[in-house]
Amino acid sequence: MVQKEKVFTERNCDPDSDIRACETGRYVAADRRDVDSFEEENVKPEVPVIQLGAGTVGRELIRKIKTWNGSEGNKPRYLHVGIADKSGFVTNKNGFSERDLSKITEEKSTGEELAGIYPNKVGSIGSLESFLEGMESGVLIDVTDAERFEDLYRSALTRGWSVVLANKIPLTRIDSREFSRLKQSGLRYETTVGAGLPVISTLDHLRDHGEKFVEIAAILSGSLSFILSRLEVGVDLQQAVRKAKDKGYTEPNPAEDLLGKDVARKAVILGRSLGLDFTLDDIELQPLVRLDNSSSSKLWPQLEAANSDLLEKVKSAESRDNRLRYVARINGQGASVGLEEVPESGPLGQGISTANVILFRTDNYDDPPLIVQGPGAGPEVTAGGVFSDIKRCRARCR
Amino acid sequence: MVQKEKVFTERNCDPDSDIRACETGRYVAADRRDVDSFEEENVKPEVPVIQLGAGTVGRELIRKIKTWNGSEGNKPRYLHVGIADKSGFVTNKNGFSERDLSKITEEKSTGEELAGIYPNKVGSIGSLESFLEGMESGVLIDVTDAERFEDLYRSALTRGWSVVLANKIPLTRIDSREFSRLKQSGLRYETTVGAGLPVISTLDHLRDHGEKFVEIAAILSGSLSFILSRLEVGVDLQQAVRKAKDKGYTEPNPAEDLLGKDVARKAVILGRSLGLDFTLDDIELQPLVRLDNSSSSKLWPQLEAANSDLLEKVKSAESRDNRLRYVARINGQGASVGLEEVPESGPLGQGISTANVILFRTDNYDDPPLIVQGPGAGPEVTAGGVFSDIKRCRARCR
Repeated sequence: MVQKEKVFTERNCDPDSDIRACETGRYVAADRRDVDSFEEENVKPEVPVIQLGAGTVGRELIRKIKTWNGSEGNKPRYLHVGIADKSGFVTNKNGFSERDLSKITEEKSTGEELAGIYPNKVGSIGSLESFLEGMESGVLIDVTDAERFEDLYRSALTRGWSVVLANKIPLTRIDSREFSRLKQSGLRYETTVGAGLPVISTLDHLRDHGEKFVEIAAILSGSLSFILSRLEVGVDLQQAVRKAKDKGYTEPNPAEDLLGKDVARKAVILGRSLGLDFTLDDIELQPLVRLDNSSSSKLWPQLEAANSDLLEKVKSAESRDNRLRYVARINGQGASVGLEEVPESGPLGQGISTANVILFRTDNYDDPPLIVQGPGAGPEVTAGGVFSDIKRCRARCR
Repeated sequence: MVQKEKVFTERNCDPDSDIRACETGRYVAADRRDVDSFEEENVKPEVPVIQLGAGTVGRELIRKIKTWNGSEGNKPRYLHVGIADKSGFVTNKNGFSERDLSKITEEKSTGEELAGIYPNKVGSIGSLESFLEGMESGVLIDVTDAERFEDLYRSALTRGWSVVLANKIPLTRIDSREFSRLKQSGLRYETTVGAGLPVISTLDHLRDHGEKFVEIAAILSGSLSFILSRLEVGVDLQQAVRKAKDKGYTEPNPAEDLLGKDVARKAVILGRSLGLDFTLDDIELQPLVRLDNSSSSKLWPQLEAANSDLLEKVKSAESRDNRLRYVARINGQGASVGLEEVPESGPLGQGISTANVILFRTDNYDDPPLIVQGPGAGPEVTAGGVFSDIKRCRARCR
C-alpha cells in the first residue's frame, strides 16, 4: 500500500546524483534522528545565484543577500555567480566578492552599465545558457522587465535550477499551458502581483484548501490609486500624473500605467494561477485615460484634454458616497480591468493611496471575502518578496 | 469557474517551507528530465493519516479528504489509518474505507463516541505512540482541544511524520524553545490563528523577506467582535452573548471567550512565531468582561451587572467616531490583549462582524501596514486551512 518514505532523503542527500539537495537533506535527516541535533549542525552551504537585472529592485536584492550572508545561523549563503543587465553578462564561478558587488551596485546606481564597469569581461546574454550548463544548480532570478528570457527559464528549470521572477512580461507572453508547466516545475513569481504582498501564495493556499473561486477583485496599481486619490482632493490629472511620475510610482512613460497594461498583465497572471486559460487579448481592458498617441512627448496635452471628464466622474461618484478605483476582476466569465465606482466604505474604496487591495471570493470566503492589502510597490518590498521566493525554493536548489 | 484538473500537480515547491521541498522524488525527477514528461507520470501515492478529533472541524476534514481522494489527477491520496476522540483510538493499517468514514462521521455528528461505534475495537489513546512506530510515515493531525499530545507530536516528528495542528493548547503549554524546535522540524499550525486565513504563512513570508517586525495588531476573536458589534446597535450584553453562543461563535462556556483566554493563546502563538520568548503569563490580559466566577451557571447574572458599564464605553467611543474592539498587540515590549478604542475609519475599526483582521507592521510595511482580513472562524474554513497545511507538508511525508 504505502511506499516506504525515502525518496526525499535519497534525492536530497546523494551528492553524486544530485548535489543541490544536500543542505536540505542534512536538515531532514537531522530532524528525523532527533529534533535537538538540528541545532547542532553547523553547515553553511552556498547556493549559486544568477541575477538578471541590477536596477533599483536588483540592487536592493543584492543588499538583502549581503545582510543575510553576514548574519549568524546555520543557513545557506547565496553566492552571486552571474549578473546581467541590458549591456551584458558578467560571471564569476567562485562567486563575486562583497567588494565586487558593492562596486556593481554603486556604479549601476549612477547609471553605469555592466559593460562599462567590466569592459573586458562582459559576455553576451546569449552565453547565459551555456554558463548554466557548467554550473551546479542554484537560483536564477529575473528582476528585469525584459521579454526574451522564457527559453532560459525553461532550460534552467530542466537543469534543476530554481527560477524566481519579478518580471511579469514573460508570464503573459508564454501560453497558459507553458505557464502551468513552468509553475509545476518550480518557477516562483510572487512579486509579479502586489510586489511583496502574499497574493500568489494566498491564492495557492486557498486552492490547497479546496476552495472554489467565485471571483478575485483587486486594486493592483499603486500609481493609478495615487492618481485617483489626488483627483479626489481636486488636483488636476496632469499634475497628479506628474506627481506620481516624480515619486517614482509610474513607469518611465506613465502612459503604460494610464492605459492599464500593467494591471492587465497582473490580471492574466492571477487568472493563470487559478488554472484559467486566457491571454492578454482576453482581458476586457478599459484604460484609465484613452490615449490616441501613447508616446511620452504626446502624453501631456492628451491628459489636459481628458482632465475635466475624469474629474467630473470622480465628483459624481463622491456625491453617491462612492469612489472611483481602477479595478481588476477575474471570475468564471473572464477578466476585466477598468475604472469602477466602488462604495467608499467597502474594502475596495477604503484603500489608502498607493496600497494594493486584493479580495478573494470563494465558496467559504464570500461575504466577507478574504482580503490582503498593503503597499504593493517599491524596491524594498519587491526585493523582499523576491528574497522570500528565493529562500522558499532553496530546498530545490541544492 | 472552470479550472484545470491538476490542482495539486501544479505545485512542486512548497511555498511555505524551508526544509520541506517538493512533493515526491518522482515528480521532481520527471521535471528534471523534461518538464513535459511530468504530466505523463501516473502515480497516485497514498499518504497515511492519523486524525485526532472528529468534532465539527474533524468531520469537515474527513469530507474534504474524501472529495480530494475521489478527484482526478496525479496526486497523493490521504488514507486514514487511525482516528481518535476522547473515548479512544481506532485503527486500520490498510486505511478506513469510505463506508467506515461515513459511518464514523454520521454517528459522531449525533453525539456518539468512537468507543460506542467500535465497542470492541477501540484502543487507548496511549497506544497511539506504539502504533506510529509500526507505520510508515504520514501526517498526524490534531483537531482536538486536548492538552496532552505534545510528546506524541515530538515523537511523530522524530519518526519522520508531519504534524498539523488546529489545536492551540499545546503550543502555549510547551516552552518557546520547544515551540521553535517543533516548528523547525516541520510542525504546521496555520489554523491556530485566524482559522483558514493565511496568518502564520504571511508572518513567515515577511520574516523570509528579512522584514523587521515593529508590531502585530490584530482582532482575533470572531465571537468578541460579534458581541461588540451587537452592543453597537444597542443590544444588551446578555442578549449579545446568548446570540453569539446560539450561533456557535463562542466556546460552549462563553466565559472562555469573554475572559480573553482564547485571544491570549493566539497572541502567544504569534509572538513565538516571531521568535519571541514568552508564555501566557507574560501577556497583559484585560478581559472583555471581568468575571468573579466563570462557571457557566454563574455567567448570566454577572453579564447583567457588567452591561451598563460596557454599553456606556461603546457609546462614548462612538461619540468620538471610534469603536471598541478586542485587540491583541505583539511587539518588542511584549504582548497585550484587551479592549481598545480604535478609529471607525481605520483598519481595525472597519472589520465586519465575526471577521478577523491582522495588521503586520514592519520596517517596510508600516504606514500603511500589511493587512490580512476575513472570516476567521467556522468549521469549513478551519478544515480548509488544516487541509492546506496537510498538502503543504506532503513533501516530508514520503
